[in-house]
Amino acid sequence: MSLYERTISFVLNYIEEKKLEEGAKLPTEPELVAMAGVSMVTVRRALAELAAQGVIRREQGRGTFLNRSRVSAETTRLGGLRNGLGLDSSSSLETRLLGLERRDASAEESSRLAIAKAASVWEISRLRLLNGRPMIHEVSVIPMILAPDLGAHLESDPQRSLYATLDAVYGLREIREEQSLVCRRANRLDKKLLGLPKGDWVVQISGISFSARHLPIDSFRIVFDAKGFAFRLSTAPASAMAAVELADS
Amino acid sequence: MSLYERTISFVLNYIEEKKLEEGAKLPTEPELVAMAGVSMVTVRRALAELAAQGVIRREQGRGTFLNRSRVSAETTRLGGLRNGLGLDSSSSLETRLLGLERRDASAEESSRLAIAKAASVWEISRLRLLNGRPMIHEVSVIPMILAPDLGAHLESDPQRSLYATLDAVYGLREIREEQSLVCRRANRLDKKLLGLPKGDWVVQISGISFSARHLPIDSFRIVFDAKGFAFRLSTAPASAMAAVELADS
Repeated sequence: MSLYERTISFVLNYIEEKKLEEGAKLPTEPELVAMAGVSMVTVRRALAELAAQGVIRREQGRGTFLNRSRVSAETTRLGGLRNGLGLDSSSSLETRLLGLERRDASAEESSRLAIAKAASVWEISRLRLLNGRPMIHEVSVIPMILAPDLGAHLESDPQRSLYATLDAVYGLREIREEQSLVCRRANRLDKKLLGLPKGDWVVQISGISFSARHLPIDSFRIVFDAKGFAFRLSTAPASAMAAVELADS
Repeated sequence: MSLYERTISFVLNYIEEKKLEEGAKLPTEPELVAMAGVSMVTVRRALAELAAQGVIRREQGRGTFLNRSRVSAETTRLGGLRNGLGLDSSSSLETRLLGLERRDASAEESSRLAIAKAASVWEISRLRLLNGRPMIHEVSVIPMILAPDLGAHLESDPQRSLYATLDAVYGLREIREEQSLVCRRANRLDKKLLGLPKGDWVVQISGISFSARHLPIDSFRIVFDAKGFAFRLSTAPASAMAAVELADS
């Protein structure tokens, strides 16, 4: 390991040992020079790298501060996000129902959901707040024919998981999701809902969930504040996937 | 669908029907107003959204241009990237060996790879170029005890897949990967190797691959030019995963 890499490790260890929390101030550059026993040039390079990685932020004339750590999100776990988010016991997750609309499917949605052109769908828009901070925006589009009075169910209990409701009320249980993840610049809506500064990026996961009968249930789009999340993926052998496909059909 | 969303669809359809390629110029705002039959305000909002999504870019005084499309990368497929990248037949993928070093494992690597502290490892750094453009930087750290003369094998044929070599020469075949994906600002090395402009982001996938005997083979870090890729994820039922675990142990 180079001096530079060792200095990065030194700072990361310091953060962990001192149990620094979000917003905590780090030692000054001269203090780090003395503590790590390396040159000012090396300390500055190491801090620049940690800032580029989003671990710390440097404020002109004020010093260096610890950014909040990322929440790990399980992308290969089915259904509602609550169980798939790696939250500690002190974190709270709140769901706010932003919109619940009955409308005609677009051409693309009809094709994705395998329904007739302009068939009716529910569009459900929700915001997830972690510890009071808006972090995730989810839009779900569900064929009305599968869940005719979904609107009433969701309005009566907005905190209840959409997937739990679909399963309990309509017998629609997800068995598989096809998802696509992109990293892109925040647009106007993301900025407004997630309160992102200019130039920030989001992670967008779009996909379809399927029932045990391979029926598309939900065309979804989930937008995450990119700097707040790490996505865990687990890769299973292709043979297992094939076996599941055969058993279901 | 609102007029605004319909205008976005109109532009996307236009791009597809005219088979526009990367760098192609789109119609001007007044031309789009006439073609789509909507107001200038709506056209401008739709173009701003498409620019935020990275589909197009707008150049002051020059017009609107189509960005290259994203390459889809299969994150739940095991091993080498070549088979997991959704390339058309005209695209070429080239691998450049940047570094091949024999060194001591760091404390973190020893723990991740389940080897003794400061045991010897290979560090292999490679750059992937798509159609001549650097797009992916991969660093693999492999315990030397598993593949003593790996260096000589890789130097004799840099285009050969690392995973194919590990399998053919040392009988190390991946059966599972644990991966974590984050979106972060490009650091100095990313900027240099991938030629990224200031303020751009990268997608970094870090992980460990395991052999059929649950032995960690490879601690890897793969950095992608974020705007160039869409990552496909397929979610399998938890029961299938559990079945594979049991069969292996």
